[in-house]
Amino acid sequence: MKVARFSRGEGVLAFGIVDEEEHELVVLSGDPMYAGYDPTGERVPLSDAKLLAPVIPRSKVVAVGKNYREHAAEMGGEAPAEPLLFLKPNTSVIGPGDPIVLPHQSERVEFEGELAVVIGGIARNVPEDDADRVIFGYTIANDVTARDLQRRDGQWTRAKGFDTFCPLGPVIETEYDVVAGEIETSVNGERKQAGAFGDMVHPIASIVAYASSVFTLLPGDVILTGTPAGVGPIVAGDTVEVSVSGLGTLANPVVAAP
Amino acid sequence: MKVARFSRGEGVLAFGIVDEEEHELVVLSGDPMYAGYDPTGERVPLSDAKLLAPVIPRSKVVAVGKNYREHAAEMGGEAPAEPLLFLKPNTSVIGPGDPIVLPHQSERVEFEGELAVVIGGIARNVPEDDADRVIFGYTIANDVTARDLQRRDGQWTRAKGFDTFCPLGPVIETEYDVVAGEIETSVNGERKQAGAFGDMVHPIASIVAYASSVFTLLPGDVILTGTPAGVGPIVAGDTVEVSVSGLGTLANPVVAAP
Repeated sequence: MKVARFSRGEGVLAFGIVDEEEHELVVLSGDPMYAGYDPTGERVPLSDAKLLAPVIPRSKVVAVGKNYREHAAEMGGEAPAEPLLFLKPNTSVIGPGDPIVLPHQSERVEFEGELAVVIGGIARNVPEDDADRVIFGYTIANDVTARDLQRRDGQWTRAKGFDTFCPLGPVIETEYDVVAGEIETSVNGERKQAGAFGDMVHPIASIVAYASSVFTLLPGDVILTGTPAGVGPIVAGDTVEVSVSGLGTLANPVVAAP
Repeated sequence: MKVARFSRGEGVLAFGIVDEEEHELVVLSGDPMYAGYDPTGERVPLSDAKLLAPVIPRSKVVAVGKNYREHAAEMGGEAPAEPLLFLKPNTSVIGPGDPIVLPHQSERVEFEGELAVVIGGIARNVPEDDADRVIFGYTIANDVTARDLQRRDGQWTRAKGFDTFCPLGPVIETEYDVVAGEIETSVNGERKQAGAFGDMVHPIASIVAYASSVFTLLPGDVILTGTPAGVGPIVAGDTVEVSVSGLGTLANPVVAAP
């Protein structure tokens, strides 16, 4: 099932289930993560809705570095034995179609297409076998990174934490076969990254177990699971598209800071 | 003015202003950061209240590394030319008196007493001269750190992000002369750290300006401003006390993970 968060008209915000045959949204009475699936009876044509980031994390966006061997190699290292965690602030989250704003401070901003896990329960020391129980669903992320600042600072917080540096969407798929999934990132229609989720060094269940052994995961937390090889720069005027089989495409234009 | 967040009895939570002469809390109708100062008319003896973390960040705990020269030196480096930012998750926040839980994963957990800035407005690209305008007040923090994991991971997220690794409190002082302030950390009554805020490499206004040029700061965000020299280990059974002139003492016992 595909869950969307959307607006139509000014200030009217709702959650809905995507009816892919009818190209409509089945409007829900609240956020299904907390309120369950309670349709209001109303339907909205997809063409009348602006899809938003399907979740706004109230606690954490956790991300995993170097989780595909070829990307670790292109970054000049090896994939670490344990998941390498970092945080992106919730102020970096934007939705599908929203512009990625290139900050004045950086001369090289890069895309990183990733599969994102949306946490649906309170998770502390979750065993790998139970990880599925605390996963609400999956969406697409772009772990936008100021590569020059990442290298200069050592700590990745600034390079990955700018406003607009965490596009999420377009929907959350609640039933997804991760191992069979594939991801592709393109810039202006040209394919740059392609990867298979089966190639992750640390699969989803171990990432969730590992992260939950460090910090309590809360409903609405998002975990970005790492990017495959092929990262590269974006400049103002570009459009980045991250496509995941079964989840759709997350497209964002790139603009210069005002 | 000293603002406290407190509970008395089960589930009854409120904000109050500390009346230091009467040893009482002047109960407020809501969080003064959002609702202003609106006394209900009720007063509660301080001895009947359990003080809680005076703020629960809904977006970010931003922290600054190596902001005192002598601490940078004891960590084997120099103070960076720009503030070195990292994030702690809001799930790491605890209040005065709450136990710091030593995680199984680390064999060396250390205290880091710090002054914390509580943001009270929405702040994006704030000039240094305007920093005061977005500051709600100041409190005390302990930037608890698993030193072994910090060295091993390279990224500091795990080492500084464990649940209970961000004690905050006991109160927020809304009018504070930072430059005249001093901090002292003791373990079991023995003084370990002492510093003067006038010795910060990057003063508060530049930290706020710098952080707000990276990410939008939101009301309730907290900025930890770095620790002076003298950091050291804590073990189960210890009590850590961070005292700041004019702000009081933040005391937390240390326990082993269950």
